[in-house]
Parts: sequence; C-alpha cells; structure tokens
Amino acid sequence: MSVHLTAPDPASLHPIAGVRLGVTEAAIRKAARKDLTVVLIDEGASVAGVFTQNRFCAAPVQVCREHLAGGQAIRALLINTGNANAGTGNEGLMRARASCAALARQLSLAPAQVLPFSTGVIMEPLPLARIEAGLPAAVADAREGHWARAAEAIMTTDTVPKAFSAQVATGGATVSISGIAKGAGMIRPNMATMLGFIATDACVAPAVLRDMVAAVAEASFNRITVDGDTSTNDSLILIASNRAAHAPITALDSAGGRALQAALTDVAKKLAQAIVRDGEGATKFIEIAVEGGKTSQECRQVAYAIAHSPLVKTAFFASDPNLGRILAAVGYAGIHDLDPTKIDLYLDDVHVAMRGGRHPAYREEDGQRVMKQSEIVVRVVLGRGSASDTVWTCDLSHEYVSINADYRS
Amino acid sequence: MSVHLTAPDPASLHPIAGVRLGVTEAAIRKAARKDLTVVLIDEGASVAGVFTQNRFCAAPVQVCREHLAGGQAIRALLINTGNANAGTGNEGLMRARASCAALARQLSLAPAQVLPFSTGVIMEPLPLARIEAGLPAAVADAREGHWARAAEAIMTTDTVPKAFSAQVATGGATVSISGIAKGAGMIRPNMATMLGFIATDACVAPAVLRDMVAAVAEASFNRITVDGDTSTNDSLILIASNRAAHAPITALDSAGGRALQAALTDVAKKLAQAIVRDGEGATKFIEIAVEGGKTSQECRQVAYAIAHSPLVKTAFFASDPNLGRILAAVGYAGIHDLDPTKIDLYLDDVHVAMRGGRHPAYREEDGQRVMKQSEIVVRVVLGRGSASDTVWTCDLSHEYVSINADYRS
Repeated sequence: MSVHLTAPDPASLHPIAGVRLGVTEAAIRKAARKDLTVVLIDEGASVAGVFTQNRFCAAPVQVCREHLAGGQAIRALLINTGNANAGTGNEGLMRARASCAALARQLSLAPAQVLPFSTGVIMEPLPLARIEAGLPAAVADAREGHWARAAEAIMTTDTVPKAFSAQVATGGATVSISGIAKGAGMIRPNMATMLGFIATDACVAPAVLRDMVAAVAEASFNRITVDGDTSTNDSLILIASNRAAHAPITALDSAGGRALQAALTDVAKKLAQAIVRDGEGATKFIEIAVEGGKTSQECRQVAYAIAHSPLVKTAFFASDPNLGRILAAVGYAGIHDLDPTKIDLYLDDVHVAMRGGRHPAYREEDGQRVMKQSEIVVRVVLGRGSASDTVWTCDLSHEYVSINADYRS
Repeated sequence: MSVHLTAPDPASLHPIAGVRLGVTEAAIRKAARKDLTVVLIDEGASVAGVFTQNRFCAAPVQVCREHLAGGQAIRALLINTGNANAGTGNEGLMRARASCAALARQLSLAPAQVLPFSTGVIMEPLPLARIEAGLPAAVADAREGHWARAAEAIMTTDTVPKAFSAQVATGGATVSISGIAKGAGMIRPNMATMLGFIATDACVAPAVLRDMVAAVAEASFNRITVDGDTSTNDSLILIASNRAAHAPITALDSAGGRALQAALTDVAKKLAQAIVRDGEGATKFIEIAVEGGKTSQECRQVAYAIAHSPLVKTAFFASDPNLGRILAAVGYAGIHDLDPTKIDLYLDDVHVAMRGGRHPAYREEDGQRVMKQSEIVVRVVLGRGSASDTVWTCDLSHEYVSINADYRS
C-alpha cells in the first residue's frame, strides 16, 4: 500500500558522471533478494553526510562519522539491508570496520575511504562473511546508470523504490542530480531508518557541501514523520563528483550555490515525501501546515503533536472528520501560553474551527469530503505571530500494526 | 478486550457516609445506556481536584476550576458521557454552566456548588435539554451504595467498569475509601480522557486535601499512558466527607495524613492501572521501570519514549522480543549526554542487553517466553545515577485502530 507512488522510470534518472552503483544478492537475511549495494566514487569528488540524532546510533553511523572526520577522500559507499548492525556493541563496530576493509581491499583503497550503511533488524550480528562474499559481484555490477536498480536494492519494508532526478543550470553549465532513499516506518524528525544518497556532478568545495547537506536535510528529511520513532541508523549522504564544466561553488550564498541547493532540496523533498507516501500501512498523505506562531520551532512542535497523535492518525485512516482530536493535539503540544480562543483550523479549503470553536458555517459533510481524499492539507493558524512550518505525515492503519507486528517473522 | 480485569463486585465497595451516587439513561448520544451520573455530597465535606494540562481544556474543566476557586462548598458532581463539551467555545461554557444551574435548582444549591464533567465526542454541542430532563431520575436514584452502578455509568470506550475500595486506620478510626474511574484511550501523563472520583469519610482540612489530590494524581494517573494523547477533559476529584470519628487531618506530613495518603494512592494506582489494562485494544499490561538516572525526570522521559513508541508497542502485541526497538527508543528519549555503552535492559528476569549490546548469554527463546506473557516488566538501567521512575502502558493492537477508526460511527 502506498499513496500515489509509482516506481521510478529508469530512463528519467540521470547518470552522474563519476558515480557508479552496483548491487547483488548476498542472502544477508533472506535469499533471492537484492540486499547489497556499492556506490563507487571516482577520485576528486566531495562527500558530506548528516546522521541520526539517536544516542544509540548504530555501528555503521559511528564508523561513517569517524571516516568523514578523518579527512581521507571518500571513494565508496557500502550499503546492506536485512541487518542494521545496531545495538551490537564493540563487536558491531568491529564488523562495520571489517566490511569497509573488505571493500577497500578489493578497490585498493584505505578502509577509511569507505562509508558503511546498514538497515534492517537490530541486535543481530552483521553477517560479515556473506557481505564479503557478495562484494565482487556488486563491484562488477557498478554502472553510472544503475540508480533505479540501487533504489530497489536498498528497500526494506518499502513497497516502492524511491528515486528522483533533476537538472539545473549553475555557473554556465547544466548539472545533474540523482538521489535514492529508503525507509518506511520509524521515520521522524532528525531522520529515521532512513537512508538517502544524493549525487551531483556539480563542482562544490567540501566545506560548502557540508553546509549544503545539513540545510537540505533540514528542509526535507527532517520534516517527515510516520510513527515518531527515530532510528539508530539514519544517514543522508551527498556526493559532488566535481565533473561538470563550471567553476567550483565556494560559497553557499552565491548564485550557483543557491541554485544547486534549491535543486538538491527539491530532489530531497520528493524523496522524503515518497517515504511518507510509502509509510508503513499509509493510505493517506497528510501535510500539516502551522502558521501564526511566534517561532517556527513552536509551529513544528504543534505540527508534530498532530502528526504523532495516534487518535488523529486513526481518524484520518477512517476518513472521520473528528476534528476535536486535532484541536486536542494542538492543546497538548506544550505551548504553555497558548490561547485556544485564537486558533483557526482548516481542512484543505474547509474552515472547520474558528477562534477555538466549531465554525458556525462548518458542515460535517464538507469535512467528510476532504477526509475521504488521499491527500489532505491540515492548516492550523495559531494567531500569535508570523512564523510558520510544515511537516508531512501519513495515517495509522491496520496495515501498520500488521507490518510491525510481523516484521521479523 | 482487557488485560486481567474484571468488573468490581459491588459488595467489595464500601459506601462512603455522606456521599450518594445516582445514575440514569438520558439518551445523550445513544438510547438505552446509563450516561448521566450525579454525586451528591452532604454538607461539611471537603472537595479538591486536579485537571488536564491541555491548553485546549474543555468547558466543564474551566467551570470546575472556577467553582473550586470560588470558595463555596461543593455539594454535587454532574457527570455525562457521550459528549465531551470540548472545542465548543463560549457556547460550550454557557451550556456547562447551565447544566450546573439545572442541578443546583433541583437541590436548592448555588450553581457554583456543582462541578460538571463531560466525556465523549468533541466539538458537538452539549445536549442540555436531555441532561436537564434526566436529572430528576438521577437524583432520585442516589444512594451511598451505588459505586459500582456509577462506575458503569461513566464508561465510554471502556469495556469493564473500574472501581476499588480500601479501609485504613487513621487517628484511632477506621476510614473507608471508594473510587471509580473511566478512560481507555487518549491516556497519557498529566492525565487523559480520564475521569476519576475518589471519596473517603475521613476528616481532612481543605488545604491538606488539595495537596493530597495533587500527590495522589502524580503517583497514579500521571504515570499511565495508552497512546500518548492528552485529553481536554481529564479530571480527578477527591472528596472527604469528614464523617469519620477522628480528629481532622491538618497536615499531610502527619501519621494520619501519611496513612490516608498511602491508602488513597493505592486506590488511585489500582484505578489508573485498570485504565491501562482496559486500554483501547490492549492485550498486554506493561510496566516500564527506568533506574540509574540522574533525575527521576529523565527516567520518566526514557520510560515514556519506550511507552509511546508505536514500534515497541506493536512488538509487544506480536510477542516479538525485538529488543532493539526498545534500545532505539532509549536512544532518542532526549538525554543528550546519554552513554549507550552503560545501558542494561531486562525483560522481567531476563538480562537482554548489557552495556548497550546484546547480553552474551541472552537467548531469543528466553525473550520470547517473557514477551508471550500478558504482564511484562521492562527494566532499563541507565548507569548514570540513582534516580528511578515507573510508568504503566499497554501494547498497540489491530483492535486499537479499529476502535479509534470507528469511534464515531
């Protein structure tokens, strides 16, 4: 089940010069399933990443942070599904490092030039031997045109692969962007069991790329939530292969920097929204826009209170305009001086609540009509300032319970 | 569905001298259903209450606060189900006040001597005429022995009525305590669509009773959570009819005060735990004990992160010892300097994780055995201090989605 989401057309995804993707079936958890992906990056590229805020971050995340901080050029990514290598202690760290070393040996690199990514069940030892055994086939498979193939290979409970591309003019050249992501449940701000990999052939100085990946994540993956859980493994990686024919972008706040960042954000937002559309058991895609706050922080707080409320989410699933549940969530969002008599609520174009009470002209059938749609905008006006923010989420269905109750069986 | 919960035996519930309860069928939302309850309190009693922290608090909560602050002796409670009179603006306030006035007229009291309580759907106008029409029958029904009957009449999505009694020696007399509560979904700290009414014949000075109700709520109703939603209507009322033959308790920190408070807390805890056992769709009762924190506040934070995680809750439903989900929740609970390598995790007696990793002796079948139980203790040791705290919650099942998706239909 997914909301308005189709598999990417491989022809729509631009190859990125200097970035090749290869996949194989390594039987990491189940047989006959693409579960191992390598991304091989030519010399001269810049690579930057942002990672989960979960204190219990998984071994591969720790190793990624070390390798990125180490300053050696990153030349390969190694991604497995089926096992998250999280909650695995020192043994997990050793295995993550060993997997990097195995790929590095094959490519004649230093282990610190490889970044590892794992997603799947937690607290199980990473099956290192199977990963090592699968690497030659994955490397042999590597092509610049394999974005759709890689999008499929990184899926876990996803039902549809997620990949988007864009092109943008910057510094007199047209640069390409391609990105893939996975992650269906356990998604919330500060990312999720979310893996995202975006590459461009644009030329970007490493320091600028680091700022760019943080800004891009903040406007996309950090604005989605499925169930409020924050995974131990979330990672977003941005690669600039520096192959396009333009002068390098050395400042974020430059014409080229702004154009590239806007295009990257656009691709990242599409990937992030695709994750919500493919949320575990999702039948509806919901945008929650909160306006009129004192700060965008408090707008987010309200938006997440609504987005995480199981009562609101089940009402969406049932197409029930039980709008009081939304107002109740606004009320407990934690804004201590909130004045309920200033709050307005809209469902798409329908003005549902005015100054904290039911709008006199509101008719249940109008609310019902909107609630039956598969895409719904909830707009809350707080009436206390001019800040705003938006998050995207989905409903809570029987299917969510089934998927998560049966995940390991 | 409920976890080890049976309807109270009316014979086990002590009548409280000076407190009479009466119920009737007023067809507030559905016909042929006890939905209107009055509690009539003889002159000379003390009454105190605590209420929802939701900023969007319902009209009856606002009126309760006014009437309790007004200083006139509270002589009656008026409780309806079927309609929460929340999100109803000024019109809602007027209707709550009018319902108090109607009962006051019948009892020759001032309206400010009546406290109103409403639970049910939100944003619908309170059907005042039906309430008024039902009052004579409810008043005529009032008896000291009607605790079980009232427990039934205040139910909404509850499947089992909740009532407990206790007796305790204080100041040379034996005093009785009886309490009822309702509330199955929308339960979380700072209370829920939770209504609780506890009465004792003990003699307690009003100021002491106010401190007592706050302390009792903190140790009971504020430690339970079903779905993380905080209702607009939560109320806990404590009545001391002052009829027992002992000198009044004038200090919380006295032998009599401590004995009474312990007994009240015991009754309140049983009521609160009964609400969780009857949580919407609950199939398991889960105690989450967090130890070794720097403060009890941070222990609660971790306990609630676990208790609110849909991934953890569905794993409990599935009897799946997917313990990584619990560790992940510990990691995102918001303790910024948490050291994952100091964390131990137990499921009942089974030592699952040691220093942040899987315990070497842990076998999946041991975890499975505990997860199959209908009562489970999750114990997390943070290894950073000596504070602790405990919350009680339930699992997330298909039934939860069904109940909340169908509630209004």
